[in-house]
Amino acid sequence: MHITGTFLDEISHDIPHQNWSQKEWDKDFQHMKAMGIDTVILIRCGYRRWITYPSKVLKEREGAYSPPIDLVEMYLTLAEKYGFSFYFGLYDSGKYWWDKGDFASEIDINLRVVDEVWQLYGHFPAFKGWYLSQEVSRKTGKIISLYQDLGRRVKDISNGLPTLISPYIDGKKAILAQESSLIKNDAVSLKQHEEEWNEIFDGIKEVVDIVAFQDGHADYDELADYFYVNKLLADRYGMSCWTNAESFDRDMPIKFLPIKWEKLKLKLEAAQKAGVEKAITFEFSHFMSPQSAYPQAGHLYQRYMDWKK
Amino acid sequence: MHITGTFLDEISHDIPHQNWSQKEWDKDFQHMKAMGIDTVILIRCGYRRWITYPSKVLKEREGAYSPPIDLVEMYLTLAEKYGFSFYFGLYDSGKYWWDKGDFASEIDINLRVVDEVWQLYGHFPAFKGWYLSQEVSRKTGKIISLYQDLGRRVKDISNGLPTLISPYIDGKKAILAQESSLIKNDAVSLKQHEEEWNEIFDGIKEVVDIVAFQDGHADYDELADYFYVNKLLADRYGMSCWTNAESFDRDMPIKFLPIKWEKLKLKLEAAQKAGVEKAITFEFSHFMSPQSAYPQAGHLYQRYMDWKK
Amino acid sequence: MHITGTFLDEISHDIPHQNWSQKEWDKDFQHMKAMGIDTVILIRCGYRRWITYPSKVLKEREGAYSPPIDLVEMYLTLAEKYGFSFYFGLYDSGKYWWDKGDFASEIDINLRVVDEVWQLYGHFPAFKGWYLSQEVSRKTGKIISLYQDLGRRVKDISNGLPTLISPYIDGKKAILAQESSLIKNDAVSLKQHEEEWNEIFDGIKEVVDIVAFQDGHADYDELADYFYVNKLLADRYGMSCWTNAESFDRDMPIKFLPIKWEKLKLKLEAAQKAGVEKAITFEFSHFMSPQSAYPQAGHLYQRYMDWKK
Repeated sequence: MHITGTFLDEISHDIPHQNWSQKEWDKDFQHMKAMGIDTVILIRCGYRRWITYPSKVLKEREGAYSPPIDLVEMYLTLAEKYGFSFYFGLYDSGKYWWDKGDFASEIDINLRVVDEVWQLYGHFPAFKGWYLSQEVSRKTGKIISLYQDLGRRVKDISNGLPTLISPYIDGKKAILAQESSLIKNDAVSLKQHEEEWNEIFDGIKEVVDIVAFQDGHADYDELADYFYVNKLLADRYGMSCWTNAESFDRDMPIKFLPIKWEKLKLKLEAAQKAGVEKAITFEFSHFMSPQSAYPQAGHLYQRYMDWKK
Repeated sequence: MHITGTFLDEISHDIPHQNWSQKEWDKDFQHMKAMGIDTVILIRCGYRRWITYPSKVLKEREGAYSPPIDLVEMYLTLAEKYGFSFYFGLYDSGKYWWDKGDFASEIDINLRVVDEVWQLYGHFPAFKGWYLSQEVSRKTGKIISLYQDLGRRVKDISNGLPTLISPYIDGKKAILAQESSLIKNDAVSLKQHEEEWNEIFDGIKEVVDIVAFQDGHADYDELADYFYVNKLLADRYGMSCWTNAESFDRDMPIKFLPIKWEKLKLKLEAAQKAGVEKAITFEFSHFMSPQSAYPQAGHLYQRYMDWKK
Repeated sequence: MHITGTFLDEISHDIPHQNWSQKEWDKDFQHMKAMGIDTVILIRCGYRRWITYPSKVLKEREGAYSPPIDLVEMYLTLAEKYGFSFYFGLYDSGKYWWDKGDFASEIDINLRVVDEVWQLYGHFPAFKGWYLSQEVSRKTGKIISLYQDLGRRVKDISNGLPTLISPYIDGKKAILAQESSLIKNDAVSLKQHEEEWNEIFDGIKEVVDIVAFQDGHADYDELADYFYVNKLLADRYGMSCWTNAESFDRDMPIKFLPIKWEKLKLKLEAAQKAGVEKAITFEFSHFMSPQSAYPQAGHLYQRYMDWKK
């Protein structure tokens, strides 16, 4: 179970920025290539007023700030250079579907973004898929409608390019980064998880091709069961089942630094045992890159490479 | 709007120490010089029992510990070597005006410190100003009297050297570093901010020459209004209006790492638009220096240098 | 008062992992040697399901995961290579004596671990002592019985090798790492501390040879008194009195980065004044090593070396 994809977490919720230029990104794609990565996924093209490309839509309608560089163009160019598939992550308003539960507005702004983006970047040969960036752990609000409407539109406009979602498990470690605690008491049960995701998958099976659950919110000894259920559900509805192997450590008071290699290895092995088809990580550049600001990341890279051989 | 000054945050409230010797500090002043810095401001000469110079006053009266080296002498010597202006930050008891609201004791100990300091270091040619280190966001207690009494004394003793304060905005991000949350609900309104600072400036206009509001506590889209009001008030009372451009990121759960370049750029541009006269930063050595323990700082330095060209 | 020992914090509660291989560990032992270290103490051989050596006992009874490498063997080999004494830290279930107060189960599992470990590693010449890893600050539950039972057994099995404990002071900084605050209000009094530890020492004097109180939970100006009392009690019961000089900073919101050198120096000097016999640190590899992921650690190492000369 090798890691062959990574998110690109520019426009981050909670991971401090490394302030890289095009030069460092090119170098990072080289490191990714050496590790066996073939897929990069932009986690989101924008969050609130911060955006990755000079979007007229988001500047006019959401008051977004003009970004210093066009990250989407840069990533697509680098992906082409290194032979990677690039997945484009949709916009996260950080408000409509968060506090207000206004999924209609979240859909509306994203439909406009999709049109704009496809016109601007659809011709790049590395543009190979879409990431529906609204991440949930439960049947939250009208999340099924949102995935349906956005999934259908991106597939229609792009001649059926694949769509990916990356939900999380509402497990004991499903804690917001800005909360100081590490464990919560009201985790979901495996049965409840299965019931809710069965219903969600049934609702989105025609417009979502790949599901890559985040692997960091349940305890390590519970993971095998969750992998098993997730694979079962994905198979039932004809979806591909990937794992989103988190390469940061959720068990430590500093939120977040690179994960202990032993933990990442355990998670990859559990995913393999369940027949999961591909592993991607959140994310390479902070937590596994030899040039990361966190030197533990470079050592994690070396441990991974030693093991992979 | 270029950054031409920085605080020196030895004796810190909340930023972990880098354990530099004179050699690293000399190197850091070289980096500052290369970036265009001409002003360094000692954030405080002491906090509780921790002090920057071997102060008899603070050892006898506050039980301060003997510092391993005389940082004030070192900074003054380096400032002279590199042609910088040095501002001396007053003592912060961390108690008199904090918990107890005993501004009289805070003033009293500082008057003694000022006498001692001017005698010890007043002859250094780089000694060019004073920083009144008690930072507030509102008309807190007898803060006007404190600025009056301390401002008058330091100017009297030093033949009128300029005095600087660096208040903050009681905005939605005015959160203590040791609190886990990032946002508070009871932020000040722009109108209330203007009323209180109008009153404070009126009370201190004769003894405070420069005001450099910290730029990190309001949201980015609110900053233009605050810069505008702050400049208006400073003009009204004949004070210079600088900006204290924070180079660390208040939006992240790790408190604190270097800021995303895009954010710093936005803040500097907003300050320029309002006619702010000079930008200083809190602070270069942790958050913008190529030799910082946080490698993101070196990348921020490069992004800033690329932009400045 | 030089630092001549360090904990080895693999299997950590709260310090993120550096992902080192044997190569980096060998290098780190060289750095330790250069600093004057002669003693290394494995903080614990396992915590919950994470273990440092391939323990049949812990895999079968506690569901422990198979570790990627045998750290105990590696450390013993390196200790021998560099002439260090190695202390083996017992297992911490993280549950029996924590939530449940079930000290009997904690003792039971450890007695089995001790048998296993002595058989596997007892022949290594560097195996020079035992660390009873259950750390307390007060007379918690049946902690005296636990130290008695485990201390007696490890001494019996190993022909009387010395035993070490490292309690903490229930002072104002006795805060869990995952709590966001830095100070608590209900700290123990010096008198209460003395009474409880007098009783504990009386109960364990025959099976515990060395006590090394952690020095980070009381305020700096209180430390002299605590060192004095701790030394007095150790002398009274014929135990050796070491200090566990914490090299990380408990006063900062990032939990944890390397300590400011001035603070470590103060603590070492206070320990020396009280006649403490040896200083060990928690711990070298993250917080004092020139190859630590935290560059402040390398600078702390340099400051320490400058001072030691």
